[in-house]
Amino acid sequence: VIALLTDFGFKDSYVGVMKGVILRRAPGAPIVDLCHNVMPQDVLEAGFVLSGAYEYFPDGTVFVCVVDPGVGSKRRILCMETPRHLFLAPDNGLLSVFMAEIPNRTFYEVTNESLFLESVSDTFHGRDIFAPVAAALAMGLDPERLGPKTERVGSLDLALPIRTADGVLRGQVIYVDQFGNVITNLSQKALEPDVVSRRKKVVVRIGGREIRGLSKSYKEAGPRGLLAIMGSSGYLEISVNGGSAQAELQTNRGDEVTVSFEK
Amino acid sequence: VIALLTDFGFKDSYVGVMKGVILRRAPGAPIVDLCHNVMPQDVLEAGFVLSGAYEYFPDGTVFVCVVDPGVGSKRRILCMETPRHLFLAPDNGLLSVFMAEIPNRTFYEVTNESLFLESVSDTFHGRDIFAPVAAALAMGLDPERLGPKTERVGSLDLALPIRTADGVLRGQVIYVDQFGNVITNLSQKALEPDVVSRRKKVVVRIGGREIRGLSKSYKEAGPRGLLAIMGSSGYLEISVNGGSAQAELQTNRGDEVTVSFEK
Amino acid sequence: VIALLTDFGFKDSYVGVMKGVILRRAPGAPIVDLCHNVMPQDVLEAGFVLSGAYEYFPDGTVFVCVVDPGVGSKRRILCMETPRHLFLAPDNGLLSVFMAEIPNRTFYEVTNESLFLESVSDTFHGRDIFAPVAAALAMGLDPERLGPKTERVGSLDLALPIRTADGVLRGQVIYVDQFGNVITNLSQKALEPDVVSRRKKVVVRIGGREIRGLSKSYKEAGPRGLLAIMGSSGYLEISVNGGSAQAELQTNRGDEVTVSFEK
Repeated sequence: VIALLTDFGFKDSYVGVMKGVILRRAPGAPIVDLCHNVMPQDVLEAGFVLSGAYEYFPDGTVFVCVVDPGVGSKRRILCMETPRHLFLAPDNGLLSVFMAEIPNRTFYEVTNESLFLESVSDTFHGRDIFAPVAAALAMGLDPERLGPKTERVGSLDLALPIRTADGVLRGQVIYVDQFGNVITNLSQKALEPDVVSRRKKVVVRIGGREIRGLSKSYKEAGPRGLLAIMGSSGYLEISVNGGSAQAELQTNRGDEVTVSFEK
Repeated sequence: VIALLTDFGFKDSYVGVMKGVILRRAPGAPIVDLCHNVMPQDVLEAGFVLSGAYEYFPDGTVFVCVVDPGVGSKRRILCMETPRHLFLAPDNGLLSVFMAEIPNRTFYEVTNESLFLESVSDTFHGRDIFAPVAAALAMGLDPERLGPKTERVGSLDLALPIRTADGVLRGQVIYVDQFGNVITNLSQKALEPDVVSRRKKVVVRIGGREIRGLSKSYKEAGPRGLLAIMGSSGYLEISVNGGSAQAELQTNRGDEVTVSFEK
Repeated sequence: VIALLTDFGFKDSYVGVMKGVILRRAPGAPIVDLCHNVMPQDVLEAGFVLSGAYEYFPDGTVFVCVVDPGVGSKRRILCMETPRHLFLAPDNGLLSVFMAEIPNRTFYEVTNESLFLESVSDTFHGRDIFAPVAAALAMGLDPERLGPKTERVGSLDLALPIRTADGVLRGQVIYVDQFGNVITNLSQKALEPDVVSRRKKVVVRIGGREIRGLSKSYKEAGPRGLLAIMGSSGYLEISVNGGSAQAELQTNRGDEVTVSFEK
């Protein structure tokens, strides 16, 4: 399986052309659109999307990540090999969002030009480099053939949740989905074991609002009710039952959210 | 073939992750995106989309319908087996929109948790239940293994067209497509045999406008002309040649449309 | 491989249903979405999208082009056979945008109704004619079986770049992509050999602005800088680094762009 993650959207034929190249080099390879609507050039969002997704894919999947503001400049392209998957991405910090979770990872710098299309454009390495390299990997190419191993990997400055002296957990909004669900960087791991056992005592504060208790389903909150719930990516989410929490809270990425517990 | 029908849209990776799960459990299964832009939580629209589509799919197709406002609550999940297809959907009336058309249908309640992902979230049953169950069915699992047969199936209150005493057929708008074509619930069956033989005598009234005659093509109406035509789903549609009938009529779902015949 | 190019968008199930028909007739055929967001009924744009894409697809690919304002009228449907590919399209000039580039092309009129779905609607030939015919071709049908050869092929009135007496090359905007990159009809071929050797002396004028020099990457222009670059389709593009040239220039298709050289 080759899974594609880009900020190319669906207006143009960019994604379609990448698939053409892949199928030319790897006939019959199953291609999955993981997501093509990452905010343009938003490397952090791409990393977040991938972090919540990769574990669900088959062993051997090649993830092709083309969110690449530096295309055409001297930025490197990396391949990260893990026990289950391969990840192709520019060396712009995208992989750093989740790579710490995966032990036994190896990085290669993609430099073997014999794998690229014959003519490489200045602006569309997704087609000219990423697609043919992914196809070669899907056909069984040993990642060692891509180029030299490397240990130098760019990383983003991630805002991690912090626990203050009075026991309040302080995080922030990292993503808003199509339904207006507001997703925070407070993982189940960061909240546990408190959350499981003390679900009803949780107090979430965001955008001047206070939510008491964690819900198990949207319906629990009643029509148009604001609620907090452990989301499907394993992070605390703020939602409105039958509506958009984003519209109600007017919140954006980076806004603060705190979790404390009633006594 | 596994065909997906959701209200997840394309902004997020929800659909992509479902495909990852499916391909992990059913390697190589062809997956088709039937539609992912059903209006959020609009069960009726999902049922309508499926009603016009399922007959065109190969025998053995598994339709996976995740328009599911009740996710995380106690709502049941059903599998409808028909002579040609399988349909997975929440028991929220979605299947009731068209199931009456299909004889010899059997319903199963999907309760066999051994088919689900190990950890089932509160908010994303598409990934945790629907996808792995669909994969199992695509791999040949007997639907009897999903759970007990059931005859209790939720249904929506569908507005059917009515014929008034003076012979006028009265229906309503049920869908507006991307081109602004306004699709009604007046099927060819409801209109026949009158329509075929008396095409030129048809009078359609909608939004204060009157359309005389049924067209055979958009071009017949002249540039920007308003027209009525038997649409591709088998329902009467109102269109503007080279434009949007929705924009011209300012009509919405539920608005009335009538058909009568000139003497 | 069957590659689909339409103006159907993703709101509705039209594309999904076409895939259902294809997979019913050609089980297992890999289907690629080349692009479904061509501006409604914009035949020229469809031709332009295809012209920049087809070379990247595997030999034997069947391109199915359904941008078809004349659907339901008497317009013909054509199949163009080239040494590497097959193209199905209405005879509305779509193929004329790029067919001159391909030698040894043969045209067939698609008239063999035994290949169509049993019932052909007035408005959805994508489903009823194009999809089943494409499936038959993908299964190996000889194009001669589609219908009679023809030499009469409709063409669009394409605005080609012109070189004025004083050596200025005058072209126009033909496409704006999702990122706001403004793509012109000035191909590398039209500009060469001047451009390669005299990159720094190029002067591009568009929308009252003047751009000096051709960039090799977006980053060269500095943050929010306006730049000219040879785009991935082989045409001169105007971009803003990290932004939208379309928003900055307020330019639209048909607007003039000129290229000259500093002495």
